[in-house]
Amino acid sequence: MNILITGVAGFVGTNLAKAMLRRGGRISGIDNLRLGSTRNLDPVSTHPDFGFEIADLSDIEAYRRALGRLQSRNRIDEVWHLAASSDIPAGVADPAVDLRDTFMTTFNTLALMKEFGIGTIAFASSSAVYGDLGDRSLAEDSGPLFPISNYGAMKLASEAVISAGLESHLERAFIFRFPNVIGTPATHGVILDFVRKLKVNAAKLEVLGDGSQRKSYLHVDDLVDALLFIRAHAGDRLNYHNVGPSDEGVTVRFIAEQVVQRVAPGAGMTFGRGNQGWVGDVPAFSYATGKLSRLGWRPKLDSAQAVRRAVDEIVAQESRG
Amino acid sequence: MNILITGVAGFVGTNLAKAMLRRGGRISGIDNLRLGSTRNLDPVSTHPDFGFEIADLSDIEAYRRALGRLQSRNRIDEVWHLAASSDIPAGVADPAVDLRDTFMTTFNTLALMKEFGIGTIAFASSSAVYGDLGDRSLAEDSGPLFPISNYGAMKLASEAVISAGLESHLERAFIFRFPNVIGTPATHGVILDFVRKLKVNAAKLEVLGDGSQRKSYLHVDDLVDALLFIRAHAGDRLNYHNVGPSDEGVTVRFIAEQVVQRVAPGAGMTFGRGNQGWVGDVPAFSYATGKLSRLGWRPKLDSAQAVRRAVDEIVAQESRG
Repeated sequence: MNILITGVAGFVGTNLAKAMLRRGGRISGIDNLRLGSTRNLDPVSTHPDFGFEIADLSDIEAYRRALGRLQSRNRIDEVWHLAASSDIPAGVADPAVDLRDTFMTTFNTLALMKEFGIGTIAFASSSAVYGDLGDRSLAEDSGPLFPISNYGAMKLASEAVISAGLESHLERAFIFRFPNVIGTPATHGVILDFVRKLKVNAAKLEVLGDGSQRKSYLHVDDLVDALLFIRAHAGDRLNYHNVGPSDEGVTVRFIAEQVVQRVAPGAGMTFGRGNQGWVGDVPAFSYATGKLSRLGWRPKLDSAQAVRRAVDEIVAQESRG
Repeated sequence: MNILITGVAGFVGTNLAKAMLRRGGRISGIDNLRLGSTRNLDPVSTHPDFGFEIADLSDIEAYRRALGRLQSRNRIDEVWHLAASSDIPAGVADPAVDLRDTFMTTFNTLALMKEFGIGTIAFASSSAVYGDLGDRSLAEDSGPLFPISNYGAMKLASEAVISAGLESHLERAFIFRFPNVIGTPATHGVILDFVRKLKVNAAKLEVLGDGSQRKSYLHVDDLVDALLFIRAHAGDRLNYHNVGPSDEGVTVRFIAEQVVQRVAPGAGMTFGRGNQGWVGDVPAFSYATGKLSRLGWRPKLDSAQAVRRAVDEIVAQESRG
């Protein structure tokens, strides 16, 4: 199998490429290197079964040329579409960011899959499609879907065009609704923020919000394992799964404590007001992962273990400079 | 109140403008006249409280200029965004149609509302956001939302950016999920198709699909009445309602019979195969309108009455030529 991974130089993309190559797949990767970096690709870039093109997927001409070059080496069998803006606050400030990087990348991916005759897509969606449903458990069939960030809106829009595409040129689709994913190479996120803040000021860690936000976290190794498990075991034309641990999650305060303990033991912590860290942030949600459990998958690490491991990994990443 | 109606020269737009002017509102209308026509505006165009600009809303520069001219006459208080591609099969053949006319028109509307400081939007969404949920009753909180047409996908995407906009610059939103709406000025739809087919060949009416598709239909007079009722009575920041009659609907065969009886009594009817008229067509659905009923609104006509009245109106429209 020759798999196209979009956003291959990003956090999840590099980990997915590594895992797929390890399992004997061939990888064709595309990235615009806006959030991803070639350095992230160091572990795979010299692999004989790895091909890479730099292109901005929101520019369909550039995308078509890159895909043509990759196809000329190996016919692409399916697409794993991970490219997106992962900077949620940037998309709240300027909706054009998520329009371009989170939605148009999907729209163009589908247009080119039709042109190139590629029938199967696996798509990195997000728990952000659910918006804020209050205390309700978020299962795959929950509604209504009113996202509270443009990132979530453009992930939902992407799901929608994929689902419509199944009525015409697409053959199969896998929609993975990602939870908070942590690990390295970290490019953004609460752990990286805390580590960097403490590097600047080792005496005090300032936390946005009151620290009571509770979320579940999945380590990227578990995430990649889950995606490959779903791809191997889910049998519908349209497969859609929440991906995440089955625990109740940990609070931002817990994460702050882990980082302080590891980076600057004894540093003070200050908290903001309210349980929303930033506009577009969902304060707390109960993420139902029963559908994935019933398919037979279990994470190796729960949220607390994932946070502890990711803190270690991110501290190591940051001290490499 | 000065209301901006986008898509004002279309089927619903013209009826809404008439009703709002009758109730003493001021209307600023925009339309690109691709599907709408100035002829549709004849009943309102000379009204002193009606202003109109031709602009393609997918072109934000043109849209901004048009909105600026309308605002210079009267400050706009809220936007009723109706502009969209109403040609569902066209969007299945080419997703760029609904991207441009159904989604980018919404995206640009929100961007300009932010620029111009307009806080309230009323949006013409669609039952198409639900996709094909089989036998399930489609209530407002039903999920998952996997549309089967690009039209439905881009209506869902529009809802999503509106909901995200409420977290930043929007103050209130009204999302109306339209059913099949019938009446005049008819620009598309099954009744108009049948009437025109019989004009070409009065001996035989060819029906796509086997005629068993059952859908509910709302007359445009009832639709407009419902929208104004919701605007007046719904009190949330984000209000979303299925709009439709509460009956079980009528079949395509019933509609064909009404048209034959009115246009060419004694004409034969031939039917196709399958219960889907075209790709992207949802064969049958049970549209739950309990939320709207609980708000206190009732339609004057049920589906069968609405079809009979619309057939009369469309036959009259077509014989005016």
